[in-house]
Amino acid sequence: MLGVCYYPEQWSPDLWQDDARRMADLGLSHVRIGEFAWSAIEPEPGRFAWDWLDRAIDTLGRAGLRVVLGTPTATPPKWLVDQNPEILPHDRHGRPRRFGSRRHYCFSSPVYRAQTRRIVEAVARRYGGHEALVGWQTDNEYGCHDTVRSYSPAAAAAFREWLQKRYGTPAALNEAWGNRFWSMEVRSFAEVDLPMAAVTELNPSHVLDFYRFSSDQVATYNDMQAAIIRAHSPGRFITHNYMGAFPDFDHYKVSGAIDFASWDSYPLGFTDSIAALGFSDEERVRYACTGHPDISAFHHDLYRGMTDRRFWVMEQQPGPVNWAIWNPSPRDGMVRLWAWEALAHGAEVVSFFRWRQAPFAQEQMHAGLNRPDNVLDTGGREAEATARELSGDWWRAIKDRPMQPAQVALVFDYDTAWHHEIQPQGRSFSYLALVFTWYTALRRHGVDVDIVPPGRDLRSYKAVFVPSLQHVTPEAHKAFAACSGQVVFGIRTGAKTASFQIPRNLPPGPLQDLLPVKVTRVESLRPGLLRELRWRNRAYACGTWVERLEVDASAGVQGSFDSGDPAIVEKSGRTYVAAWPTRELALDVVSHTLAAAGIDAMRLDEDIRLRRRDGITFAFNFSGDSRPAPAPAGATYVLGAQSIAPFNLSAWKS
Amino acid sequence: MLGVCYYPEQWSPDLWQDDARRMADLGLSHVRIGEFAWSAIEPEPGRFAWDWLDRAIDTLGRAGLRVVLGTPTATPPKWLVDQNPEILPHDRHGRPRRFGSRRHYCFSSPVYRAQTRRIVEAVARRYGGHEALVGWQTDNEYGCHDTVRSYSPAAAAAFREWLQKRYGTPAALNEAWGNRFWSMEVRSFAEVDLPMAAVTELNPSHVLDFYRFSSDQVATYNDMQAAIIRAHSPGRFITHNYMGAFPDFDHYKVSGAIDFASWDSYPLGFTDSIAALGFSDEERVRYACTGHPDISAFHHDLYRGMTDRRFWVMEQQPGPVNWAIWNPSPRDGMVRLWAWEALAHGAEVVSFFRWRQAPFAQEQMHAGLNRPDNVLDTGGREAEATARELSGDWWRAIKDRPMQPAQVALVFDYDTAWHHEIQPQGRSFSYLALVFTWYTALRRHGVDVDIVPPGRDLRSYKAVFVPSLQHVTPEAHKAFAACSGQVVFGIRTGAKTASFQIPRNLPPGPLQDLLPVKVTRVESLRPGLLRELRWRNRAYACGTWVERLEVDASAGVQGSFDSGDPAIVEKSGRTYVAAWPTRELALDVVSHTLAAAGIDAMRLDEDIRLRRRDGITFAFNFSGDSRPAPAPAGATYVLGAQSIAPFNLSAWKS
Amino acid sequence: MLGVCYYPEQWSPDLWQDDARRMADLGLSHVRIGEFAWSAIEPEPGRFAWDWLDRAIDTLGRAGLRVVLGTPTATPPKWLVDQNPEILPHDRHGRPRRFGSRRHYCFSSPVYRAQTRRIVEAVARRYGGHEALVGWQTDNEYGCHDTVRSYSPAAAAAFREWLQKRYGTPAALNEAWGNRFWSMEVRSFAEVDLPMAAVTELNPSHVLDFYRFSSDQVATYNDMQAAIIRAHSPGRFITHNYMGAFPDFDHYKVSGAIDFASWDSYPLGFTDSIAALGFSDEERVRYACTGHPDISAFHHDLYRGMTDRRFWVMEQQPGPVNWAIWNPSPRDGMVRLWAWEALAHGAEVVSFFRWRQAPFAQEQMHAGLNRPDNVLDTGGREAEATARELSGDWWRAIKDRPMQPAQVALVFDYDTAWHHEIQPQGRSFSYLALVFTWYTALRRHGVDVDIVPPGRDLRSYKAVFVPSLQHVTPEAHKAFAACSGQVVFGIRTGAKTASFQIPRNLPPGPLQDLLPVKVTRVESLRPGLLRELRWRNRAYACGTWVERLEVDASAGVQGSFDSGDPAIVEKSGRTYVAAWPTRELALDVVSHTLAAAGIDAMRLDEDIRLRRRDGITFAFNFSGDSRPAPAPAGATYVLGAQSIAPFNLSAWKS
Repeated sequence: MLGVCYYPEQWSPDLWQDDARRMADLGLSHVRIGEFAWSAIEPEPGRFAWDWLDRAIDTLGRAGLRVVLGTPTATPPKWLVDQNPEILPHDRHGRPRRFGSRRHYCFSSPVYRAQTRRIVEAVARRYGGHEALVGWQTDNEYGCHDTVRSYSPAAAAAFREWLQKRYGTPAALNEAWGNRFWSMEVRSFAEVDLPMAAVTELNPSHVLDFYRFSSDQVATYNDMQAAIIRAHSPGRFITHNYMGAFPDFDHYKVSGAIDFASWDSYPLGFTDSIAALGFSDEERVRYACTGHPDISAFHHDLYRGMTDRRFWVMEQQPGPVNWAIWNPSPRDGMVRLWAWEALAHGAEVVSFFRWRQAPFAQEQMHAGLNRPDNVLDTGGREAEATARELSGDWWRAIKDRPMQPAQVALVFDYDTAWHHEIQPQGRSFSYLALVFTWYTALRRHGVDVDIVPPGRDLRSYKAVFVPSLQHVTPEAHKAFAACSGQVVFGIRTGAKTASFQIPRNLPPGPLQDLLPVKVTRVESLRPGLLRELRWRNRAYACGTWVERLEVDASAGVQGSFDSGDPAIVEKSGRTYVAAWPTRELALDVVSHTLAAAGIDAMRLDEDIRLRRRDGITFAFNFSGDSRPAPAPAGATYVLGAQSIAPFNLSAWKS
Repeated sequence: MLGVCYYPEQWSPDLWQDDARRMADLGLSHVRIGEFAWSAIEPEPGRFAWDWLDRAIDTLGRAGLRVVLGTPTATPPKWLVDQNPEILPHDRHGRPRRFGSRRHYCFSSPVYRAQTRRIVEAVARRYGGHEALVGWQTDNEYGCHDTVRSYSPAAAAAFREWLQKRYGTPAALNEAWGNRFWSMEVRSFAEVDLPMAAVTELNPSHVLDFYRFSSDQVATYNDMQAAIIRAHSPGRFITHNYMGAFPDFDHYKVSGAIDFASWDSYPLGFTDSIAALGFSDEERVRYACTGHPDISAFHHDLYRGMTDRRFWVMEQQPGPVNWAIWNPSPRDGMVRLWAWEALAHGAEVVSFFRWRQAPFAQEQMHAGLNRPDNVLDTGGREAEATARELSGDWWRAIKDRPMQPAQVALVFDYDTAWHHEIQPQGRSFSYLALVFTWYTALRRHGVDVDIVPPGRDLRSYKAVFVPSLQHVTPEAHKAFAACSGQVVFGIRTGAKTASFQIPRNLPPGPLQDLLPVKVTRVESLRPGLLRELRWRNRAYACGTWVERLEVDASAGVQGSFDSGDPAIVEKSGRTYVAAWPTRELALDVVSHTLAAAGIDAMRLDEDIRLRRRDGITFAFNFSGDSRPAPAPAGATYVLGAQSIAPFNLSAWKS
Repeated sequence: MLGVCYYPEQWSPDLWQDDARRMADLGLSHVRIGEFAWSAIEPEPGRFAWDWLDRAIDTLGRAGLRVVLGTPTATPPKWLVDQNPEILPHDRHGRPRRFGSRRHYCFSSPVYRAQTRRIVEAVARRYGGHEALVGWQTDNEYGCHDTVRSYSPAAAAAFREWLQKRYGTPAALNEAWGNRFWSMEVRSFAEVDLPMAAVTELNPSHVLDFYRFSSDQVATYNDMQAAIIRAHSPGRFITHNYMGAFPDFDHYKVSGAIDFASWDSYPLGFTDSIAALGFSDEERVRYACTGHPDISAFHHDLYRGMTDRRFWVMEQQPGPVNWAIWNPSPRDGMVRLWAWEALAHGAEVVSFFRWRQAPFAQEQMHAGLNRPDNVLDTGGREAEATARELSGDWWRAIKDRPMQPAQVALVFDYDTAWHHEIQPQGRSFSYLALVFTWYTALRRHGVDVDIVPPGRDLRSYKAVFVPSLQHVTPEAHKAFAACSGQVVFGIRTGAKTASFQIPRNLPPGPLQDLLPVKVTRVESLRPGLLRELRWRNRAYACGTWVERLEVDASAGVQGSFDSGDPAIVEKSGRTYVAAWPTRELALDVVSHTLAAAGIDAMRLDEDIRLRRRDGITFAFNFSGDSRPAPAPAGATYVLGAQSIAPFNLSAWKS
């Protein structure tokens, strides 16, 4: 199903009815509204202006649209900030981050939590039972603009409480953080400061706990909103629209309070501007107008794994955006391709952002389905074409069936992302880039992938890839031990204890009972500094990161560095790869592992990607040339044909 | 005529008489003094030490020099700052920018305005009628060191007043800024903050109004100084020495209170270090010791257009400077070349900065006409040579005649510069670089150019180039409509309303009645991402910025992108170019347009530039090789010869 | 002799005895402890916990180890900071730099000086006479993390006092700083601010005096510690462990209060990450795992010159570190090579940092001689091998003999480093890089070099190199005048007076009576902008910096620029080189100068370095291939052989 994001408060009410009719005519079934409308709902302290919103929801509902209502907490109005300046988030130097855009609140502010309860309860009470309302979105893009971590007095107070709960005594905290080093002990929790503005590097254990605390503050804030909504809006779902390429808080934990995850998909901006993904300039140019072929799929697979394999795309890029470093136009066809790609990965709804380009304020250069002059834009026409295709019988037959698990899992861990960020040990070491290297190698083999948190049951998977997992919890260890498939562990796995210390038995710490290797030394390598790795008659020039292993005689050394040190070690289907893999190495390790796992795989063309859903195989062509579909001869095509058109897709019955 | 900047307060009075005599002997007629001498004039609060300045002016006057006196407001003394710390400008984080260099005042400070009135009145009363005094310079280089925009409490208060005057009611402001977006409405002007330290991007309408306000503060500050001077110094001119490549305030508006503009010309530093000009590293090396061939001319043409085609160069680079990122020496000959170039463009006086290199303080590495050991330096010898040439009859015959308008105009707009700065929509989009691309293409054709503000009468011009004009005012529209010559409009023209919104009929907004095109989409392109544009059997690989046009059938599509979309559209002599032009495209569009306008033009050698003045054609050679003068056979040379020597010029009667 | 850094307070006391035994067994004779242990010594205000430290020192002493005790002032505990927040250093914006790492104190804080006296006296009283104690280290790495210069109120007060002492009257200060420029005069010392947060560039004289003051504050702080220690610990030495590549304070001056200098040697991190050294990316890759061949030697030569040719390496890199931008592993063999290199240069003790890698807190990724699991690591095995070699008779015969002066001196000046930092006049002008260029050229000739301060007696040297010496003091002038050897002066020598002004007779100021040249103009050159310099039938393409000289007829112009201006001028054995030398030019000037001085020299292989000590010549091979030793035929090898193994050394009797 398709949806759209709509801001009735930003347009003359004269337009609403026509907008609603055109949405329905276009084939859209859902509409998200309200998430920035606090000032319209409560223009003065305590004075609520429901009238316009009543009318807007009624209008949309009457057109047959199903409404998702956002709580407006991402944009507290000016009067609220002036009354309560202590709600502002503070930056790393302790300076308030001021009013003037959005997300100007600190998750730890008790005052803001009280204000949140007040507005969410008011909105939930009023609309919780509206017949047009099918669900809720809490807030908007938690953490956007670096707002997870606030260095405010409120955050300091809450951090101290959080630490007291975690450690009980200052002595336990001192021990966990190794505070004896550099005379950093505290004698009480009141002596703990936020990790900010120190003379040099802070204790990484201190920083990690602050990151964990900050993530937990998002989770409890979201829990609070969800509890209020559930109390007043029975039978409606709750979701949150997460961002892409954004690991600042633990999305798995925040997802505990919602029914399913949704996310905001901007393939061009992510490809152009997210340094952490590690794309080369050449890739950024090559995929500037299509997005990297794996960028959307990665997030679909990630967010599908948050709850029980349900997810939405809450915001889908409909044309050029305003916020990336460079903002080209998607190629004609890409908006439809992205929509189908999401659906093929299991999205229940793909909702375009936004109905009409706003000619004012911050996002005036962000395209919509309609132009500012209310003419349907390219993206709108592609949405319409997609909607038509969705009415096909073949799709209606499968669209409501639950998504099935894949054969391959990739373990993604927010805590590990924080470890790497806090202690990269070499400039530009990026967890996202490392994960993406492995993910791309998998996708190039045409296999479907589930992305899962550490500790989830892995017994159904034939192959599991763990790009890096710095702290291996007992639950994660248990899941690995119970998995009978192939498991590939990457660098810096088991490298730290629960409190960011090196395990006393050295990395990979608790995994040593599953795979008898010991990491005795690590090296970060500047660009140009390479180590040759030899494996199965091929040589790979590895950079960025390599590790020195001690290997028990019971394990098999399969690959070695030119120094003679072991590089790839395997025992009983568990493999450790002691280098940041080149693309070729990742591809070859994946090929080998999938074969060992008995999974059918192929090497796809660089610009082609596959995804299966309930007997249908979708093939997406991110290139400007036609490409043959990797389909069996005589396949029945439900979309496209054996030759996949440029920036287009084909789909066939498997 | 030639002049020099002199600082008697920095030297022993024993030197003054000899300095004055040597200036006169060298052929200098004017001397600017006093603009940093507040502490010498008023060493203690309220105690004025006129004696030294009386004597200095008398000494200079007796040597036959005409004195220009600067008001010393760019350098309030320490005692004044300590008494009134609220005069300090504040940075984007609200931190005071402290004493220790210069320009440490906020234009909005009422206290500093009062202090300014006090000191300007004292100086104007004392010297306003001195017989040696011919004119005044207000302050020094307004805005230097990023001082136009101050984030102080005084600025906030003044901004609110300015907004109240502009909008009348908070509702009108909310509407103009689109504040309903992200719940940004204010309920009173008191609720408006300065645009600073927000969580993410501020509302561009808010920022633009702050930039306009800040520019207006410079203008009213200058108006105040000028009014005091006029009251006490009848018959003397008032000027201000503007900087190059500096669009932070509206120079046209500030020029309303002065008699003519002057500017400070540092060709090497501008070429080396002003990123906004967009020079490549190769160009920066190539022209490191000459300055880019268009850098001075551009500013001469700009500042000549401020008032009635009169202007001065108040500071002319005499050798290496201290402030650029790298500071090489000009090639021998360049100081003379620059002086003649300015004169050819209509400068009444070229004044060298400074008489003698100071061996102390911030500018000790800035050359003067004399070395610190008081020996005449290279620049001094070239000034002397120029002065000798200026006594030629051919020059004396024309030097006092008013400058005539050119056939070609280029429209330059400060408001547009702010639009682009606030919303580049692609990294490194620079208005100055775009303007310079068109200006260079014009100058490569050997034509003289007038730079004019939007709204100025264009009827006398045969060809007008508008590189970009984001907001087309009714006055600008009227001038374009009335112009019967060729008019070329560039990207992002008519792209915004008066309050930084997209026009409801899409760009180019009000110009659609002159040229029936509609910009339906824009793209910013990262380096390496190019769009082929085909026009008149040539192909151009355009980057940086392209636009998608809808074109009415009544207009002619002359060039197209490889997508088939129109790229160059013309109707009735008005042309829209929907791409950031490559150099070749700009050259070809200029050739075509000049031909259509019936203007004689040629393609000059890359390092040669021409300028005509009253029947004399000057040709400047910025290369290290001799080049043939593009003169008719049998031309009569008044300077140089048919072969223009390296780093030299020739001039002939046309 | 070899030593190690040890932190008993960070480990279970159960380990101490075994650690001590293993240190001794390994062949280590010295152990440094205590320098970060304030919180362990004084866990609560005024409550001293001596017990553990008594036991630790006893344990080490009983194992035969000689103990060096560090005063713990680099890490004031949290309770102390909370009680006295005014001790914190402040950054350039006046913000406190907070607790959470180390060095969080301002050298000017009278409160912290009192606290320092208290803790140093307590420790010195308790252990000053302990039989295992052989010496003291004051504090730890003064200035690390940019802590020399603090912008606190305490620093402002102390700076004003310092200025009053230096100048006596505000008028003298105004004159020395040239404050008449830009109306910067002060009327009292109370009006002088710290040089911070100004609108633009501060007066360089002001900044230089602040740098000198800040350096002096380190010296008086160290003097204070040393005086306390001397009072309570007779017969023990005092040292301080300086950093490498760190000129923020005058190490010669600080060394006035200690018995000898020691320094902390991290060749890989310095090579990778110290931009000021000017290594190219290619060099950084090439020497990523060995360190640049001159990086350690340079500092050995520098620190040997601090007092009477005695020095230690207090911290020697034992494996990969944690703090560089990239952190690869040293090649096997390098830890031993570095130890021998230090000993060959005269180090009395080479002490490895640290005994065992800590698995917690900030430096957990910094290798030790032992791994975190207490297994001897590569570095530990190499230390052991070195210790065995040190027991050889040939070494025992020479190891206690005082180091003899070299034939070649290089003048290094901290004040000059500050001049260049304050006024680079071209981006990336780095004094360290310039010095290193000359030093490398010398070392490539196989000669031993003494690094000395300006003003030291030079009469014993046959050749002296002065890469740059901005202010030539009377003492320095006298030493140059008295030197009968060859003296080569580089750019920007004699360029400033004592208060950062250009000498009235132009540079090289007072040296003009020794070498009759006058620098009339300088140029900084951007990359790609080169000046050809011709000398002795070779051409060199010089960049970065060139100077224009006027030369008296009595001097000989030996080399010239393509402009014809003189570039290399010589008179009576004194040479001025008016360009930043390319490597080839530096090599050729060195060859020529050594020959003129009658010093035996050769051109070594690029990766080979030599050092002589008491009749033994050591040759170090920094490459991965064997190289022939540049030894006479029939030499007697005491280490290695005629073919020097990769990453290894040979030594022979000369």
